[in-house]
Amino acid sequence: MVEGLPDLTPGQFSLVYNMFSFTVATMFAAFVYFVQAQKNLAPKYRVSMMVSSLVVFIAGYHYFRIFNSWDAAYVLNDAATMYEYSGKPFNDAYRYVDWLLTVPLLVIELVMVSGLPKGKSGSMMARLGIAAAAMIALGYPGEIATDTATRVIWGIASTVPFIYILYVLFTELGSTINEQTGEVKVLLKNARLLMLFTWGFYPIVYMAPFAGFEGASSLVTIQVGYTIADVAAKAGFGVLIYAIAKGKSEQEGFVVDEMAQPVAAQ
Amino acid sequence: MVEGLPDLTPGQFSLVYNMFSFTVATMFAAFVYFVQAQKNLAPKYRVSMMVSSLVVFIAGYHYFRIFNSWDAAYVLNDAATMYEYSGKPFNDAYRYVDWLLTVPLLVIELVMVSGLPKGKSGSMMARLGIAAAAMIALGYPGEIATDTATRVIWGIASTVPFIYILYVLFTELGSTINEQTGEVKVLLKNARLLMLFTWGFYPIVYMAPFAGFEGASSLVTIQVGYTIADVAAKAGFGVLIYAIAKGKSEQEGFVVDEMAQPVAAQ
Repeated sequence: MVEGLPDLTPGQFSLVYNMFSFTVATMFAAFVYFVQAQKNLAPKYRVSMMVSSLVVFIAGYHYFRIFNSWDAAYVLNDAATMYEYSGKPFNDAYRYVDWLLTVPLLVIELVMVSGLPKGKSGSMMARLGIAAAAMIALGYPGEIATDTATRVIWGIASTVPFIYILYVLFTELGSTINEQTGEVKVLLKNARLLMLFTWGFYPIVYMAPFAGFEGASSLVTIQVGYTIADVAAKAGFGVLIYAIAKGKSEQEGFVVDEMAQPVAAQ
Repeated sequence: MVEGLPDLTPGQFSLVYNMFSFTVATMFAAFVYFVQAQKNLAPKYRVSMMVSSLVVFIAGYHYFRIFNSWDAAYVLNDAATMYEYSGKPFNDAYRYVDWLLTVPLLVIELVMVSGLPKGKSGSMMARLGIAAAAMIALGYPGEIATDTATRVIWGIASTVPFIYILYVLFTELGSTINEQTGEVKVLLKNARLLMLFTWGFYPIVYMAPFAGFEGASSLVTIQVGYTIADVAAKAGFGVLIYAIAKGKSEQEGFVVDEMAQPVAAQ
């Protein structure tokens, strides 16, 4: 809960408001896409899009809540010149609840299309999923802390599982990715990089108050920044995973629908 | 955000209110149609309807928001004779967020059914999609500008990618369309014309304040005008794309379902 929010100009308030609404639309549109796109994939890759669809559905729900919380946290003053804190706290915890559910699913998505043999992928998904959940859970006590020392301690604790995830993605999973061919290999490397850059953005925002970065423009920057990172890390990432799954389906000779054959040919 | 809205008669207020509700219903109904109609198409054309379904889903969401924003922006006065500005701004930015997402998808839809070979269509979709997003993004600073000069400058900047899109549709894509046969060729030309006329309507509305076109009747005309243009450019356009995809599926010998064959024939 962020209490005592700074005054915002109508432009600042609206920017965040419209970014949240944009994200609701994007996440649910991505959900519709990931559900429908499954039929274009070989059956063994459809489950990766099913997981993607869960991620963006959960995120769409939370952005809907975040949008409402933002709208309730501010009122336009009587002179219609500034938006002022309404006294109703802006509930930032929605983000952590969202990440607790979606971040483990995102690492699982990547493992699913990486081409690991079936016996190995289950264990890697479990390890990465647990590490991802631990990363989020350990960050939260620092996020709500009022003193910098507590924030730093939990921030460092949260970084440990993050480094473990990166280590697995770039060593253990890296060797599997290097065995892939053509476009699929490039796309897998891009997906891993997108994960590194978008996830790397969150700790920067987390540490912003530590660097004395506060007030109206910082609030707006943080909210817009988190939102762009979420769109890229969830909807954008899902599209990349789809491209990988499509590429692998084609490499393995999957044809979208055999009913497409003209009946006369039978 | 449109602040300080003019008073409206109950008839004016209700016309816009009901147009917005009509559009929510139309967009979501079009969504349901485009999802279900995919099974009637050859698999390679189904993705064009998937994209159409995303467009109308995103638009349905935004019209739902626009409807709520309109409703909140006005209150009926005590004498129940006029609707007056409530003090809560009408958020016109929903339209721009919507267009930013849907306009690139609309050009992609058209390219998908135009019959371009696979290698060429990807590049054209990327170029047209980027140009479409640039067209919207460049228009927005002018839309929210309070002085006419700024509006004109951004309006002109936005026209550059629009002309590029028209150039590609009528030259590069035009020669591909001319190679198509029969009904498909006519429908493709109609879809391109529908795009030209509906998209051409937006800059006219954009420039309305420039022509001194202001006040209650102008507000109503602009909102109703944008709404009709959106219904034609998204739901109507999607139906045309469906007809093209259906025509091409039939030309290529696709039969909806071989189970439809009489059992006696076996």
